[in-house]
Amino acid sequence: MKSLTEHLSFHTERRREFINITPRVETLVTNSRISEGICLINAMHITASVFVNDAESGLLQDFENWLEKLAPHEPLSNYRHNLTGEDNGDAHLKRTVMGREVVIAITDSRLDLGPWEQVFYGEFDGRRDKRVLVKIIGD
Amino acid sequence: MKSLTEHLSFHTERRREFINITPRVETLVTNSRISEGICLINAMHITASVFVNDAESGLLQDFENWLEKLAPHEPLSNYRHNLTGEDNGDAHLKRTVMGREVVIAITDSRLDLGPWEQVFYGEFDGRRDKRVLVKIIGD
Amino acid sequence: MKSLTEHLSFHTERRREFINITPRVETLVTNSRISEGICLINAMHITASVFVNDAESGLLQDFENWLEKLAPHEPLSNYRHNLTGEDNGDAHLKRTVMGREVVIAITDSRLDLGPWEQVFYGEFDGRRDKRVLVKIIGD
Repeated sequence: MKSLTEHLSFHTERRREFINITPRVETLVTNSRISEGICLINAMHITASVFVNDAESGLLQDFENWLEKLAPHEPLSNYRHNLTGEDNGDAHLKRTVMGREVVIAITDSRLDLGPWEQVFYGEFDGRRDKRVLVKIIGD
Repeated sequence: MKSLTEHLSFHTERRREFINITPRVETLVTNSRISEGICLINAMHITASVFVNDAESGLLQDFENWLEKLAPHEPLSNYRHNLTGEDNGDAHLKRTVMGREVVIAITDSRLDLGPWEQVFYGEFDGRRDKRVLVKIIGD
Repeated sequence: MKSLTEHLSFHTERRREFINITPRVETLVTNSRISEGICLINAMHITASVFVNDAESGLLQDFENWLEKLAPHEPLSNYRHNLTGEDNGDAHLKRTVMGREVVIAITDSRLDLGPWEQVFYGEFDGRRDKRVLVKIIGD
């Protein structure tokens, strides 16, 4: 069994952003020289997500609006977590809806994605250094 | 390390359906001749889900009602994604709640499921051809 | 490829509880003698979750309040599933939001977690015996 462990780094300008990381993950799959296996891609921070969906700007705006409705950023006093001095209580909940990680098959040395599947990093408490872990195992 | 890659195909009659795919996945596990490993089962489309829950018809109706409350299909104008000409903005959100994929252990050549765990395909924008990927790796 | 299969057991006093299981999982990783691979941790019951987030008591209370808003326990008649004689319709939905499983990389013989990542068992219909499966595969 072979394996590859790499990190992707992020530092967004805005509090919340969605970033398509598919090309960066594909490069790592190529570098791994693994032809059959799986690829785990997970946020290493608990206010960020990795998820798969469509690279369509209107949809990304829909996600943003919907998450703000399910777990509004304000009032900050809505969240006991913010009593610690943080203002990111909502970000922990938003990330939970979107998911921490995805696992993608590797077949014939490539990410085995459906026609519209793209891998996104979802930032909900940005403007600081964050990382995503990519772990590939297989043969 | 051995691996198996297979696809399940779907074309539902209705826009939204839940389909129990546990027997089909179990057959693939048997075919793989893998006794210890993991099985990844993921939707290849971004308006569909794979999830694990109880095969109880009332519960499936509860999921349907609840998802329609969290992300209603109408009005279509609620979703910027529908400006592309689609009418499935809600389906992308519903699938996000239910999840893209599940990873299930394989132990002693069988899916290592709890007593009530069943694997479902969740369709939120059906009446067209869709696929689920099953990837099994192990020894 | 090596593998390890273990179960963690739970029997909570209250209907809903969050339990930090990170140290128990770390011990299993050590026992597995696997240095590179992945660790799957999943609830074996469909009214319970395994998820990763912050070990901060205010945040855990925020999750509790938020889930009760998204899928209230009462009135029991809200859920067709409760017509079966159960009173846990809400628990199936709450667990869906929080997730069935997590997959964590193993690197250098350790769980490859970010600085604040902790693994939790989420119980939504407790006061009975429940189990979590830990499956580790790798070299």
